[in-house]
Amino acid sequence: MSGNKAVAYIEPGVVEVQTIAYPDLELHDGPGVDPRNVGRKCRHGAILKVLATNICGSDQHMVRGRTTAPADLVLGHEITGEVIETGPDVEFVNEGDVVSVPFNIACGRCRNCKERKTHICLNVNPARPGSAYGYVDMGGWVGGQAEYVMVPYADFNLLRFPDREQALDKLLDLAMLADIFPTGYHGCVSAGVGPGSSVYIAGAGPVGLAAAHSAQLLGAAVVIVGDLNEKRLAQARSFGCETVDLTRGSPQDQIEDLLGEPEVDAAVDAVGFEAKGHGKDSDEAPATVLNSLMEVARAGGALGIPGLYVTEDPRGVDADAQTGSLKLRLGLGWAKAHSFTTGQCPVMKYNRELSMAILNGRAQIAKAVNAQVLPLEDAPHGYAEFDKGASTKYVLDPHGAFDRFSTAL
Amino acid sequence: MSGNKAVAYIEPGVVEVQTIAYPDLELHDGPGVDPRNVGRKCRHGAILKVLATNICGSDQHMVRGRTTAPADLVLGHEITGEVIETGPDVEFVNEGDVVSVPFNIACGRCRNCKERKTHICLNVNPARPGSAYGYVDMGGWVGGQAEYVMVPYADFNLLRFPDREQALDKLLDLAMLADIFPTGYHGCVSAGVGPGSSVYIAGAGPVGLAAAHSAQLLGAAVVIVGDLNEKRLAQARSFGCETVDLTRGSPQDQIEDLLGEPEVDAAVDAVGFEAKGHGKDSDEAPATVLNSLMEVARAGGALGIPGLYVTEDPRGVDADAQTGSLKLRLGLGWAKAHSFTTGQCPVMKYNRELSMAILNGRAQIAKAVNAQVLPLEDAPHGYAEFDKGASTKYVLDPHGAFDRFSTAL
Amino acid sequence: MSGNKAVAYIEPGVVEVQTIAYPDLELHDGPGVDPRNVGRKCRHGAILKVLATNICGSDQHMVRGRTTAPADLVLGHEITGEVIETGPDVEFVNEGDVVSVPFNIACGRCRNCKERKTHICLNVNPARPGSAYGYVDMGGWVGGQAEYVMVPYADFNLLRFPDREQALDKLLDLAMLADIFPTGYHGCVSAGVGPGSSVYIAGAGPVGLAAAHSAQLLGAAVVIVGDLNEKRLAQARSFGCETVDLTRGSPQDQIEDLLGEPEVDAAVDAVGFEAKGHGKDSDEAPATVLNSLMEVARAGGALGIPGLYVTEDPRGVDADAQTGSLKLRLGLGWAKAHSFTTGQCPVMKYNRELSMAILNGRAQIAKAVNAQVLPLEDAPHGYAEFDKGASTKYVLDPHGAFDRFSTAL
Amino acid sequence: MSGNKAVAYIEPGVVEVQTIAYPDLELHDGPGVDPRNVGRKCRHGAILKVLATNICGSDQHMVRGRTTAPADLVLGHEITGEVIETGPDVEFVNEGDVVSVPFNIACGRCRNCKERKTHICLNVNPARPGSAYGYVDMGGWVGGQAEYVMVPYADFNLLRFPDREQALDKLLDLAMLADIFPTGYHGCVSAGVGPGSSVYIAGAGPVGLAAAHSAQLLGAAVVIVGDLNEKRLAQARSFGCETVDLTRGSPQDQIEDLLGEPEVDAAVDAVGFEAKGHGKDSDEAPATVLNSLMEVARAGGALGIPGLYVTEDPRGVDADAQTGSLKLRLGLGWAKAHSFTTGQCPVMKYNRELSMAILNGRAQIAKAVNAQVLPLEDAPHGYAEFDKGASTKYVLDPHGAFDRFSTAL
Repeated sequence: MSGNKAVAYIEPGVVEVQTIAYPDLELHDGPGVDPRNVGRKCRHGAILKVLATNICGSDQHMVRGRTTAPADLVLGHEITGEVIETGPDVEFVNEGDVVSVPFNIACGRCRNCKERKTHICLNVNPARPGSAYGYVDMGGWVGGQAEYVMVPYADFNLLRFPDREQALDKLLDLAMLADIFPTGYHGCVSAGVGPGSSVYIAGAGPVGLAAAHSAQLLGAAVVIVGDLNEKRLAQARSFGCETVDLTRGSPQDQIEDLLGEPEVDAAVDAVGFEAKGHGKDSDEAPATVLNSLMEVARAGGALGIPGLYVTEDPRGVDADAQTGSLKLRLGLGWAKAHSFTTGQCPVMKYNRELSMAILNGRAQIAKAVNAQVLPLEDAPHGYAEFDKGASTKYVLDPHGAFDRFSTAL
Repeated sequence: MSGNKAVAYIEPGVVEVQTIAYPDLELHDGPGVDPRNVGRKCRHGAILKVLATNICGSDQHMVRGRTTAPADLVLGHEITGEVIETGPDVEFVNEGDVVSVPFNIACGRCRNCKERKTHICLNVNPARPGSAYGYVDMGGWVGGQAEYVMVPYADFNLLRFPDREQALDKLLDLAMLADIFPTGYHGCVSAGVGPGSSVYIAGAGPVGLAAAHSAQLLGAAVVIVGDLNEKRLAQARSFGCETVDLTRGSPQDQIEDLLGEPEVDAAVDAVGFEAKGHGKDSDEAPATVLNSLMEVARAGGALGIPGLYVTEDPRGVDADAQTGSLKLRLGLGWAKAHSFTTGQCPVMKYNRELSMAILNGRAQIAKAVNAQVLPLEDAPHGYAEFDKGASTKYVLDPHGAFDRFSTAL
Repeated sequence: MSGNKAVAYIEPGVVEVQTIAYPDLELHDGPGVDPRNVGRKCRHGAILKVLATNICGSDQHMVRGRTTAPADLVLGHEITGEVIETGPDVEFVNEGDVVSVPFNIACGRCRNCKERKTHICLNVNPARPGSAYGYVDMGGWVGGQAEYVMVPYADFNLLRFPDREQALDKLLDLAMLADIFPTGYHGCVSAGVGPGSSVYIAGAGPVGLAAAHSAQLLGAAVVIVGDLNEKRLAQARSFGCETVDLTRGSPQDQIEDLLGEPEVDAAVDAVGFEAKGHGKDSDEAPATVLNSLMEVARAGGALGIPGLYVTEDPRGVDADAQTGSLKLRLGLGWAKAHSFTTGQCPVMKYNRELSMAILNGRAQIAKAVNAQVLPLEDAPHGYAEFDKGASTKYVLDPHGAFDRFSTAL
Repeated sequence: MSGNKAVAYIEPGVVEVQTIAYPDLELHDGPGVDPRNVGRKCRHGAILKVLATNICGSDQHMVRGRTTAPADLVLGHEITGEVIETGPDVEFVNEGDVVSVPFNIACGRCRNCKERKTHICLNVNPARPGSAYGYVDMGGWVGGQAEYVMVPYADFNLLRFPDREQALDKLLDLAMLADIFPTGYHGCVSAGVGPGSSVYIAGAGPVGLAAAHSAQLLGAAVVIVGDLNEKRLAQARSFGCETVDLTRGSPQDQIEDLLGEPEVDAAVDAVGFEAKGHGKDSDEAPATVLNSLMEVARAGGALGIPGLYVTEDPRGVDADAQTGSLKLRLGLGWAKAHSFTTGQCPVMKYNRELSMAILNGRAQIAKAVNAQVLPLEDAPHGYAEFDKGASTKYVLDPHGAFDRFSTAL
């Protein structure tokens, strides 16, 4: 095992499958590695054979050149794998275990990790609280769109599935536990979704669809998804959501047609900073979604904001956008007593319970997000299709873990 | 409208349909009326034409002579109706509204009501916090197993359905909002049930089945129901629950067979003080359920206890039971760091959101509890069958509100 | 009692004591009364003799011409009084009761009131959820800076003090329960303040000082208050707060000097939309406070935002400000996973418990905010001094309720 | 460093200072060590020089022969120390750090630890969830009433104080963070204590006093402590509590004298299974406290139960008591809709915030519990005095860490 094929960001619009070093239990220097992390020993780490690794909308921000990601950064923070080696300080994870890796890297030992805030771990990214695999400004941990990847603090970070065969059977669903299922779910939880809620979700990309399915799991009475992309809306309808076509303008009238009132109990922003305006052929307008959600959410409602907003966006539409500043109608939100929850999802807070929902047949998340498997080599194709608006969640399969399913077809 | 047919408790084992006075906006003297409530004016009240009124397991406690209920007490605290008259202080409820009545009577003006604790309202029962229609020691408010009933504090207590026709179409499901759906749901909420939970529910009577369906609505991964009555277990299986046959002994082994481990995340007592021991032909053993749940619930788990425990039980098995004292293995619960939530369900905390789940097709509670409609006159038959262990929730129909359905059959 | 002296807004910078009608149990037409509220009967109302009624910073927004308040609007939403008459629907409040009036008017019967969201009651303001006495766009309920005032839904709205003499003895503290004590407290609660927290409060006006005292009551380890006004900072120091002088620039460096780190656990905006920039002689810069709090709050922290932001500000610094739109660095907040809670304080959620803290000597809120009593006639003077930045909370005394204290001096 | 003086349990009524092995990073065989824990390697552990280690009421249960503790068990689970050696897996704790050790031993890697339930860690005690140093049935981890002790999973378990000198100055207060301050606080939190609460605490031993001081920190309006021991009651009064003398009978009448009503908002059991009846010269009556708290707590109230109840008590008053079974008036609790929270305190959930309260002068816990320092050698004296009912929290000082204070005297 001298090499390791991996997907790297090259320049705006270009990703490439490269051969990088096979991982060991140390964070070596490389593209985007924080100098203070170089040479960090990971006796607590594990090496995984990657069974599934997904392309994420937030990878697209980098690939579109909307961040300061350096060339040759190895991508991938949605990782499911099999443990093939563990460091000397690993006690409770073993070779052969099939595991899900939360995209947030966390030490399990700092104040924030002890408070379940693994999304803002204080010990893994010298630059700021919070970290992730294969992502700009997140400490430099090597991405997992690869054959093999090293996971630090393996006892803490890994979610071990209780039964290997059962896990392999449900692999496509379980692959969503690394990020989008918990992320969508967190959006709903922080928006206050519960039994009987009416929910509006802005965005029918994979996170939006995951939020919609999460809302169903949480007992929502009505789940409405809005997008400009008709294929994605059709996907939302395929599992029981109502939809709003934003090319026809702002969502309120359509919501009123559906509910008999123009407001919902809970609202989720599954779009983030690359939002476009409503209506046909709209330009980018970063505050559109949040301002729209303040109109749509009932007084006393909450907005869950899993959609990513950034501190630096070199290609932002104007100087404000380039520093993550948005024109928000906070006066409206205040008059309606809204609350707003932002930030990365603390995946570990949710992934165990969501895995139970999957393993017991209560959640069909792969179907909801239209997960499609591609060989690792086809990652560039996946990125390109996804960028064009394919209503698909692409799952890369570096080792043929999904062959057993295709054989059956 | 000079008369009002109603179901009254006569003596242990006997209920009877009587003609009582048509209600007005005052609480008059009568069986079980607290003297301090006699003559109480209810300008804030409404008169309902009763469309559905259910027989409840807690009515059975009275009918079996397990309480100090007086003869001629008019029964019935599960009421759904149509408003036909409102007092001068009623502003937001109107004639013709189809409404659900929480079984807890609440003033909406005391400290507890303001804190959403409508189950322990301080102003409606002079004897103790908390009240209900047609129930011993609950202040003496006249029961609703009748053609007509008066509801005090109507603006506060009534849940108005937004669309009359839709409400009449879903009447059998909506009838469960007065008590057992929220009660079962409260049991699950207080047991910490959420997405991915494994849940054990002791008792497959209507409240247990309602708890089981609630657990599903709350996203539970596995719902297990235990009972001594095979028909009731079959009913639980009919909507996707696993079951445990308690005639075969305590539930742990059977739970282990189902889950691969002998414990669950959350446990609900839907039985209460008339519990029998486990095993075949068991005698009454009031602490059985709670002691069993402490064995079954995981360390750190919570027990929701909607099943009724009383302060006085004249026919209790011994002196302790007669004063509501139970031998509980609290040492075990403490070692497992359990928490316990007792008491009436504060229906108003949940009924609106559950109504949304019903009206939008997310909950099929009538089917789950096997609701069956009977004419009011057949109440004695319903009580008798229910007492024999029928796996049925009996809904009395004083005015033929369900005729439209039978015609269609 | 044919007349009723009251404080009215005349034009920007001008308030005046007028004689208006003595209140009855109806909302009559008048300045700012929503047409749909005209003629509304209040059988549920009570007439109060006003014992104390405070000038609030949010009154100043109107008096400065920063709202669309009409001429002759009677001001005053911070009311403490004695009940002198009750409507026929009032059951639990009696003549002679000394009571606090939450500034939010609430019906106690709508979905929001039932959920403790009395700040967004659906039934008292036809224009939008939420209402208040004597305030623009809040339905037109007559203000309480007057000798007498009518309070609707008296059973629900009034907080009755258990002992009349004790209440009169603590009147100056209890007067803060109508608004600023709960409002400051709500800011802290929604910012997550608890035992051991470090807290930064932007603004040392009365709400900021009330928030600071609330933080102490909640067990905060360190409470830091920032302002541009040295007298107000001195007031904060008088009861044990640390302070930050914002004329010296943004607060982080000074916080670092105090704590050894530049961030706090919890942050409260007690300023609102009329914020000025930091540094000497700063101009108005509405987003200053919120952007500063995102810098100052730790990752994972929460921002409580009791400071008022409005949907319309005719004198706003630019077109955005005039519609309540702010340039917020949401990218920064998102990177730090902040949450934000806006809106009026639901006073009823907190006033009873805070009254217990006052009556048992656990809170000295009048001292913390430097409450000073003025005769009602001197209201114009109070408004003027407060506008100049006096570090004083002005309490108007229409009936000499505080004479007993001055006699004692 | 070849030896290590330590306090061992010998037989009922007898403890002794012995010399045991100096700790290394392995759990060796010894009295009470679970066979499955023998030889367990602790590369994640740290060796501490013990600076303070307290005698706890739950140690007394063992010393009185009320448990199955074996002879020669080294006692002590309340440990504050200085790190003198760390294992190769320790990253964030360093030699010289002054640290507090939560009495619960926790791995930081299991489901429960990830959910902040460190009191029921799944990986440190093979016999059941949850563990502690020096305690029967808790896995066999060597106690800390010793000169040196090994702490496993040091990065996770240790609370590091930010400033060494400040920590040494506050050592007597900080010593209470290992157990009784968080334990009393947890009792209050789980009883729902908050600003404005009225609280009754059963038991004025150190945990009860710690609960009382916690209630003050949480903002309680009135804190009432009940006990049979007048010296302990005097101690409670010394820091502002009200008291109830239980030799005069059950607490309700005395509470009514204090509050004007016989009930409180929140109730805490700081006694546990060795409870005596109320009245003079009462015998042991294990259910007394809990049954009394159900009388005393208001309807809707919660009972926090940090007092220890056990599954086996060889000297229990009867067969029920010997298996931890209590006659509880659950019927009464149910009628009042009480909730009950039992179990060890999850210390790590609270110790950081309480340390901030201490370090910033907001909590004077050592004074509240009347902490007194003894040399390690005097441990037998401390146990004997405490058993006689001394109103003192004994702190053992193996290395003269408190000499600096006595010198000053």
